[in-house]
Amino acid sequence: MSGVIRATYEIHGDDARARATNVAVEQSHELPTELAPEQSLVSLGVVVDFEQPADGPALATIEYPEELVGGELTQLLVVLLGNVSLQAGVRLVDVAVPDSLVAAIGGGTRLGVEGIRRVLGIPHRPLLATALKPVGLGVAELATLAGELAIGGIDIIKDDQGLANQGWAPYRERVLRVSEAVREANAVSGNSAVYLPALSGPLEHFDENLALVAEAGAGGVLLMPGISGFDALRRASRVLAHDAIILSHPSFLGGFTADGTHGISPEVIFGTLQRIAGADAAIFPSSGGRFSLTPEQCAGIAAASRAPLAGVPASLPTPGGGMSVDRVPELVKLYGSDVLLLIGADLHRGGDLRSSSARFREAAERASTE
Amino acid sequence: MSGVIRATYEIHGDDARARATNVAVEQSHELPTELAPEQSLVSLGVVVDFEQPADGPALATIEYPEELVGGELTQLLVVLLGNVSLQAGVRLVDVAVPDSLVAAIGGGTRLGVEGIRRVLGIPHRPLLATALKPVGLGVAELATLAGELAIGGIDIIKDDQGLANQGWAPYRERVLRVSEAVREANAVSGNSAVYLPALSGPLEHFDENLALVAEAGAGGVLLMPGISGFDALRRASRVLAHDAIILSHPSFLGGFTADGTHGISPEVIFGTLQRIAGADAAIFPSSGGRFSLTPEQCAGIAAASRAPLAGVPASLPTPGGGMSVDRVPELVKLYGSDVLLLIGADLHRGGDLRSSSARFREAAERASTE
Repeated sequence: MSGVIRATYEIHGDDARARATNVAVEQSHELPTELAPEQSLVSLGVVVDFEQPADGPALATIEYPEELVGGELTQLLVVLLGNVSLQAGVRLVDVAVPDSLVAAIGGGTRLGVEGIRRVLGIPHRPLLATALKPVGLGVAELATLAGELAIGGIDIIKDDQGLANQGWAPYRERVLRVSEAVREANAVSGNSAVYLPALSGPLEHFDENLALVAEAGAGGVLLMPGISGFDALRRASRVLAHDAIILSHPSFLGGFTADGTHGISPEVIFGTLQRIAGADAAIFPSSGGRFSLTPEQCAGIAAASRAPLAGVPASLPTPGGGMSVDRVPELVKLYGSDVLLLIGADLHRGGDLRSSSARFREAAERASTE
Repeated sequence: MSGVIRATYEIHGDDARARATNVAVEQSHELPTELAPEQSLVSLGVVVDFEQPADGPALATIEYPEELVGGELTQLLVVLLGNVSLQAGVRLVDVAVPDSLVAAIGGGTRLGVEGIRRVLGIPHRPLLATALKPVGLGVAELATLAGELAIGGIDIIKDDQGLANQGWAPYRERVLRVSEAVREANAVSGNSAVYLPALSGPLEHFDENLALVAEAGAGGVLLMPGISGFDALRRASRVLAHDAIILSHPSFLGGFTADGTHGISPEVIFGTLQRIAGADAAIFPSSGGRFSLTPEQCAGIAAASRAPLAGVPASLPTPGGGMSVDRVPELVKLYGSDVLLLIGADLHRGGDLRSSSARFREAAERASTE
């Protein structure tokens, strides 16, 4: 028997009931119901629940037959919001999929919270991440920085999303040298830090770049679904070894979240969809930084990263975007200890990266036992 | 000597001058200026122009050094809007790139308006497109529909974006059979209709699917940059033969356009970026249909598809999304004759696709000579 995809949409504005029906049509047949031919082999999306509160948008839940997706993650996104993304007043706020769909698309978080803790050998405390930056440094400087961060106690050192294949730090050389620098630092410190290179670049080099990440012994990879598509998360999670960490970056995804009456809720775009695709951890712009989500939205993202979802493991919420060491206690209070805290520029404020990393580590250890 | 990328942003809200500077930093170094290390090899993005009208958002133009992109289309998108997409009140409204950048990324429209007219042998009149639909039909039914549409006089028959690799119409069989049906119809009618299969699907099958499109003798391909990434347009335009039409579909791109104070303007997302990536024609939701752009925004998209842009040919604006044959005169008045008119469901209203296609063709021929 085939499964059902359930998607819930907020419908803002007038005529919400009729517009909910239109969403079901637009996202499946895309023909007015009276024109759908008899020989069609698939049932339409169907509005199975509709609520119209007095003081807010309507909530419409639509069920789509799993067959509509044809076992492809890309087509799941088309069905959930493809054309409707272009309509004002419709916002995707919840998604439930059957186990069979996750299996069919070959997606789903593999490591997640527990797997990342096992790989890093850190069972309880909040995990620490930072970004190698700024773009413009050469490979040797970046490798030195990475070594300092690893010795200082950062768990996950990722490329800044601005590091690509620029002439002053070519991709291949950077991935190899920084991976080596982090291994050498671990040998000195006894830590188990990992380096996650950013991977975007031309489609035709995607698999080759994944092979380079493996060759370098990097700890996994940083991907940007807004730039490369969510399918890049799925592909990387299936090609890399089982202990590789798939970290998702929100670059170019913001169009979906900013306007509260439209697009996709932060919970779905930074939580649910990331897990369906295969991310182990997903960075999002935490409240109180340079970006615009509220504390409630951020708590919602963390909840969506842990909620039951077709047997897919919980992913690690990764708040970033202008966080600071001073805020670690507050962040751990908001997100709990199962969190990957991402602090970038603030570590550079002291000048000495090794000691600011150590302060970050101490703050996290203290916060988790408080 | 190296070139410069110029991006113009609307900055909505208070402190626009300071926020413009922050955009320049966020999109290049991503470190507060006072923390940028001396050994950095690249200059920052720089605000080169700033205007604050009394009655609207500020306009800030930022120049980024071309080297920041490292010759990759994906990284160009990261530089133009990656993180800033997550900030409220910042909207990308204009992009100018040097010829050298288009060459470096291996992008740029190839056929465009003139090339498509040459391939189809139609020098002057508005061009006609429709979508094979609905999802749920089997391959034989879809092939029959395509033949009727081709004989009726449609120039470009594309898959509906909902057609993927579902069990009732498997991708390979569909691409081969529908391509054949359109060829057979052309032999009868003397028309030169082409079929453009949709191509999304798993990353690992992308090149294989492009090879299938070529094997089938299809006229090109329909791609969804919102689902597969803009790089899919570039890659397809470089892999397929020179007479293949690259048609872009707006599925899942809507997050960028709906909120007028945020994201990317319709002109840039449906015009400029499509041409930089390699689209020959780009579908957008025209005003007066099921979606929400204004006539002014639609005229702006058409203008952006023709404006000078680093020597890249003009692309063909493709208004769709609930258009009808009755509206053809109005559409041609708005967009001019260099347009690809996309009409879907309305052709099904008469019941007989061949005669409704012929009516569409007559309406376009009449409108272009009026």
